Amino acid sequence: MKRTEIATYGEFGLIKHLTDKFKIENPSTLKGVGDDAAVLDYSQKRVLVTTDLLLEGIHFDLVYVPLMHLGYRAAVVNFSDIYAMNGHPKQITVSLGISKRFSVEDLEQIYAGINLACEKYGVDLIGGDTSASLTGLTISITCIGEADADKIVYRNGAKENDLICVTGDLGSAYMGLQLLEREKIAFSGNDDVQPDFEGKDYILQRQLKPEARMDIINLLAEKGIVPTAMMDISDGLSSELFHICTQSNIGCRVYEDKIPINYQAAVMAEELNMNIVTAALNGGEDYELLFTASLEDYDKIVTMEGIAIVGHATKSALGLQLVGREGEEIELKAQGWNSLK
Amino acid sequence: MKRTEIATYGEFGLIKHLTDKFKIENPSTLKGVGDDAAVLDYSQKRVLVTTDLLLEGIHFDLVYVPLMHLGYRAAVVNFSDIYAMNGHPKQITVSLGISKRFSVEDLEQIYAGINLACEKYGVDLIGGDTSASLTGLTISITCIGEADADKIVYRNGAKENDLICVTGDLGSAYMGLQLLEREKIAFSGNDDVQPDFEGKDYILQRQLKPEARMDIINLLAEKGIVPTAMMDISDGLSSELFHICTQSNIGCRVYEDKIPINYQAAVMAEELNMNIVTAALNGGEDYELLFTASLEDYDKIVTMEGIAIVGHATKSALGLQLVGREGEEIELKAQGWNSLK
Repeated sequence: MKRTEIATYGEFGLIKHLTDKFKIENPSTLKGVGDDAAVLDYSQKRVLVTTDLLLEGIHFDLVYVPLMHLGYRAAVVNFSDIYAMNGHPKQITVSLGISKRFSVEDLEQIYAGINLACEKYGVDLIGGDTSASLTGLTISITCIGEADADKIVYRNGAKENDLICVTGDLGSAYMGLQLLEREKIAFSGNDDVQPDFEGKDYILQRQLKPEARMDIINLLAEKGIVPTAMMDISDGLSSELFHICTQSNIGCRVYEDKIPINYQAAVMAEELNMNIVTAALNGGEDYELLFTASLEDYDKIVTMEGIAIVGHATKSALGLQLVGREGEEIELKAQGWNSLK
Repeated sequence: MKRTEIATYGEFGLIKHLTDKFKIENPSTLKGVGDDAAVLDYSQKRVLVTTDLLLEGIHFDLVYVPLMHLGYRAAVVNFSDIYAMNGHPKQITVSLGISKRFSVEDLEQIYAGINLACEKYGVDLIGGDTSASLTGLTISITCIGEADADKIVYRNGAKENDLICVTGDLGSAYMGLQLLEREKIAFSGNDDVQPDFEGKDYILQRQLKPEARMDIINLLAEKGIVPTAMMDISDGLSSELFHICTQSNIGCRVYEDKIPINYQAAVMAEELNMNIVTAALNGGEDYELLFTASLEDYDKIVTMEGIAIVGHATKSALGLQLVGREGEEIELKAQGWNSLK
């Protein structure tokens, strides 16, 4: 494969080379890359801002994450935070710290992934920073989104008796990660062994190329539903329930048998002798939405594809309860993934 | 000194601990830290967005940069980009990547510096991300600012015959860096030697604790002057002139004897046998403003303190010319600081 050294381009030449392919699509983007700051028009909407820092060896392992997927994923996880406010992502800035072992072609791969995500979700690249790094790859993305002032959904609006809903399925991304880790170990030092990914495409895709739930946000708007509280599931259902319950001052009862699990993920858990419900509760990285909605919306929600009602909100004093398959109650703890430990 | 391990706090506890002292001051900040995204109201103004990534060993050296200064500086350099658009910074997000060698007290120092900058410049901390790092310290800051739609100043608006102006003095931050580097070498391996910083406080402060030119932006507004083009001087005057001339499709004549130089910086250059004009042209990190203004504003600008008229814009075909003290012409080249080389 062709390898062009990054020093071939100057800093500005490199940024131009990497960002030239990106088109500006949103009317709110008045000026993108190329000045001291980007200029946006949010006179009709509220501005949402979220940011994520991804560090090599902590948030991703380049042994099994292709650079294009990494770029796609880095963008999408930020979009997910904007959808979690019931908004729509519109602009991102991308800063990269890159060491000498990366070539221009490597960066092109990362940006190709970011571009793919931007095109799919209708987001403009408006700026960033590219710098040498003495060590690993660093990706910092800030995403700006828009929302109608009266439709923004926070974490603190859930009320007693509200429905607790999750989208898609949970635990699949974590099982995908377990699979990748297993094959990495099996593969290391043994060039003859090919990783065994047959029949596991779904969980791999969930780990390597997650999607944000734009479709659900559009669907909720179409049905006239404004959730009472919402967040995206990046750290695992337990941890996110903990946030919503704390900030809304409620408790919850969530039913184990209502938690949506994918078949491939369940099979993988079986194979690895792991508990798939634990993966769903604490695995994280699913980038599904957890939201609460008024009981009045029950009839609408129950017919909506891709949304599962997993429980309901209770008085704060009742705590966070998981109701098992035999009716037993287990107190939920926020054991979300924590890179600082 | 007390050392609290970062693992003592969870991720959310740590963020809360570090950001609790920050107050929300701006009416445009509707919701800061604590949800999936911050929420801002920019219905009356345009939104400006800029971002910077600072990596240990590339952009700063912790041997001589105190953590509090680092935090202050990291915030201020972003504010500078917003002022360079003729806007005012209002919100920042701060993401930190931190390795085990840092304690909670270290992070408190960084945030104390950021807080000081935020208070001085009237900026709200609205979010961020804190993560472990396997290697050095990483700081990624995104700054959001506001500007009146008809007052935003880009790099591409300079016209032939416009005045070329710079604020403050140039080259001092670079001479401060040279001093720090010299003392670092003299100091290493020799505990008895104390660094010699006497009479050099100004250039040290310019390197370690730069300020953004909020005062100049306010002054220009007061006098009713809207520059035709503007940017901040982070890479050196040559490099920035190059950007403005290219994007505005003009040339320029800049007079060597008009470039504002501080006395301490000149003495330091002499001591180190360096050329102070070269430092002013290519040193960078001064965070002063370079702007062009219509000739009609000459009478106002010539009386304004802290602004020097250093030359004028010419036809593009005439290129970028530095006129020396003897009247000789030297073509300017953009040799700005480039971390990628």
